Amino acid sequence: VALRSVLIIGTGLIGTSIGMALTGQGRKVYLRDRMSSNALVASSLGAGMVETPTDVDLVIVAVPPAVTAHVVVRALSRYPQATVTDVASVKAPILEQVRLSGADLGRYVGSHPMAGSHRSGPLTANGDLFIDRTWVVAAHEDADDSCVALVEGLARLCGARVEVMDAREHDQAVAEVSHVPQIMSSLMAGNLVGVRASHLRLAGQGVRDVTRIAASDEDMWTQIITSNRDVIGTQLEKLAAALNDVRSHLDSPQVVFDFMKHGVEGVRGLPGKHGRTQMDYMHLIVEIPDSPGALARLFSDVDAAGVNVEDLEIEHDRTREVGYISIAVQPEKAEELAQAMTAAGWALKDEYCTDIVRKG
Amino acid sequence: VALRSVLIIGTGLIGTSIGMALTGQGRKVYLRDRMSSNALVASSLGAGMVETPTDVDLVIVAVPPAVTAHVVVRALSRYPQATVTDVASVKAPILEQVRLSGADLGRYVGSHPMAGSHRSGPLTANGDLFIDRTWVVAAHEDADDSCVALVEGLARLCGARVEVMDAREHDQAVAEVSHVPQIMSSLMAGNLVGVRASHLRLAGQGVRDVTRIAASDEDMWTQIITSNRDVIGTQLEKLAAALNDVRSHLDSPQVVFDFMKHGVEGVRGLPGKHGRTQMDYMHLIVEIPDSPGALARLFSDVDAAGVNVEDLEIEHDRTREVGYISIAVQPEKAEELAQAMTAAGWALKDEYCTDIVRKG
Repeated sequence: VALRSVLIIGTGLIGTSIGMALTGQGRKVYLRDRMSSNALVASSLGAGMVETPTDVDLVIVAVPPAVTAHVVVRALSRYPQATVTDVASVKAPILEQVRLSGADLGRYVGSHPMAGSHRSGPLTANGDLFIDRTWVVAAHEDADDSCVALVEGLARLCGARVEVMDAREHDQAVAEVSHVPQIMSSLMAGNLVGVRASHLRLAGQGVRDVTRIAASDEDMWTQIITSNRDVIGTQLEKLAAALNDVRSHLDSPQVVFDFMKHGVEGVRGLPGKHGRTQMDYMHLIVEIPDSPGALARLFSDVDAAGVNVEDLEIEHDRTREVGYISIAVQPEKAEELAQAMTAAGWALKDEYCTDIVRKG
Repeated sequence: VALRSVLIIGTGLIGTSIGMALTGQGRKVYLRDRMSSNALVASSLGAGMVETPTDVDLVIVAVPPAVTAHVVVRALSRYPQATVTDVASVKAPILEQVRLSGADLGRYVGSHPMAGSHRSGPLTANGDLFIDRTWVVAAHEDADDSCVALVEGLARLCGARVEVMDAREHDQAVAEVSHVPQIMSSLMAGNLVGVRASHLRLAGQGVRDVTRIAASDEDMWTQIITSNRDVIGTQLEKLAAALNDVRSHLDSPQVVFDFMKHGVEGVRGLPGKHGRTQMDYMHLIVEIPDSPGALARLFSDVDAAGVNVEDLEIEHDRTREVGYISIAVQPEKAEELAQAMTAAGWALKDEYCTDIVRKG
């Protein structure tokens, strides 16, 4: 399927970034925005031309979620040969609205590039925004295969990894990993309003991380949240119950511990770099020699082995009163490090752990 | 006040890092830990000697919060000439326990270095951990001035900025900016348990940031939270009410918008780098010329002026149908940039904004 010419409607962060990526790949890109100054800036950044085409292969609707379905329906009618996609963060309600409009559903394939910023507008755009990011293509039973392929091609041209997913399942997933985290971040940030400046000065990296995305565009998020409200509502009910539970048991170390532990488990389940689960490492265990000099040598031998150390921990054997250094490495590097350490004269506990140690 | 010799009890991340900083400053540091392998590793990292001193100027208690008061009381009795401090994240309950024990309160000055990591143990220690970080010294009415001065000196030796604060006020502040954010992060992370792997693959940077500190040590946090439960409980009550409010109005764009907006306000109130509020910038406003080439020239002239641009935004004048580029810079740089831009031939709207524009 050839993708030669594209019309992008809406030149905010996402629309402009797509334009920059496609122009970089030699595609002809037309830009349109309700605010002509936005389109002008997008064009000056190299995202395309501010012209109205007579025909294009693909129309990308990159306007705010609340008006997306409306613009999609108009584009399907205005460009009867073109495939039409959109980039809104919620997919099922838009598909439903397009279906209800009676438009040519075969040419509509929604999508969702999972990239963005807590800032908005064309000035923050970047042609590399989608590289190695996930781009969900919301195929549906009425979509033409060639149109699905064209939208998948768009995502790949922008450097993204394609995930084909049903619209409802997408909406469930983004509620869990994006919309609800956004609400919790905003909830926490809202609680800082009215906190004394002398107290805010004690803020460290933790609260900054937790509240960073609370600075996101409130208008866009209002549209996202209200259109995905059913899935989000169910999630927030669970969260409210968990919050009330811990809140009414703050004097119980066991309840607080279980609550914190549950959080540790949740964050460890997030895929790490390259999709690897954060705990999928192999652990080499070396007894701590009873002299400071020996330990320094141990660290230097680990360095010299040239294997990337993912984590270092001390493990205690309370009965024998000895300690061990546990060295976590990628499973495929364990053998290499074990050989290097053995060659350097270190005794590894139990040869080394041949199983992946799942912590926590 | 001279600080020559120090005993550090507890060689986890904080104790070991203090030892490394003090050793680096030429102080004599003794280390003790319930787990001898921890003390051994700390010593091998250059944090001090694993020896028991007969006398020291200062004892630093860096053990878990739940046992801190107990160890402080023993240290006051064992080293009758020494000042004793601790590094626990909660201050009022410890002061109260030390007072109730009948110990020599004049020599006890609690403190709280506001630095750490979501990892723990001596292997994660670092002598630079406290540089430019806040270190709260919890002075109290019964403390000897010389002991307060010694603890302030400790913080400065480690490179930290000292904030003297009443214990209760400290506990209120850290509940607001540290303990409650920790709980909200753990709450959100706990909600990820049971989410399908195919959904977790859609996780982006946002949810990772929100949940990063949820990976912190659950044992230590249980002790912190239960000992500061009164202040935290009041905060969580407010949060639960706000959560319930937005949850039961997810179909109201106005309620959701106000909720998100409140979050934006909260995060903007956090002090930026160097303590500057994030919005305290001066904005230079340039009309967008009606040609792409002109805009590219504008950006290149801004670059050439050598002034750090904090933010760029497009502002729209809907009546006149023109757009403006708003360039945010540090107030003391505004005049310089304005002159450079005028010299380069650009017309600034209203000369330039002489007032600090407070956004949002």
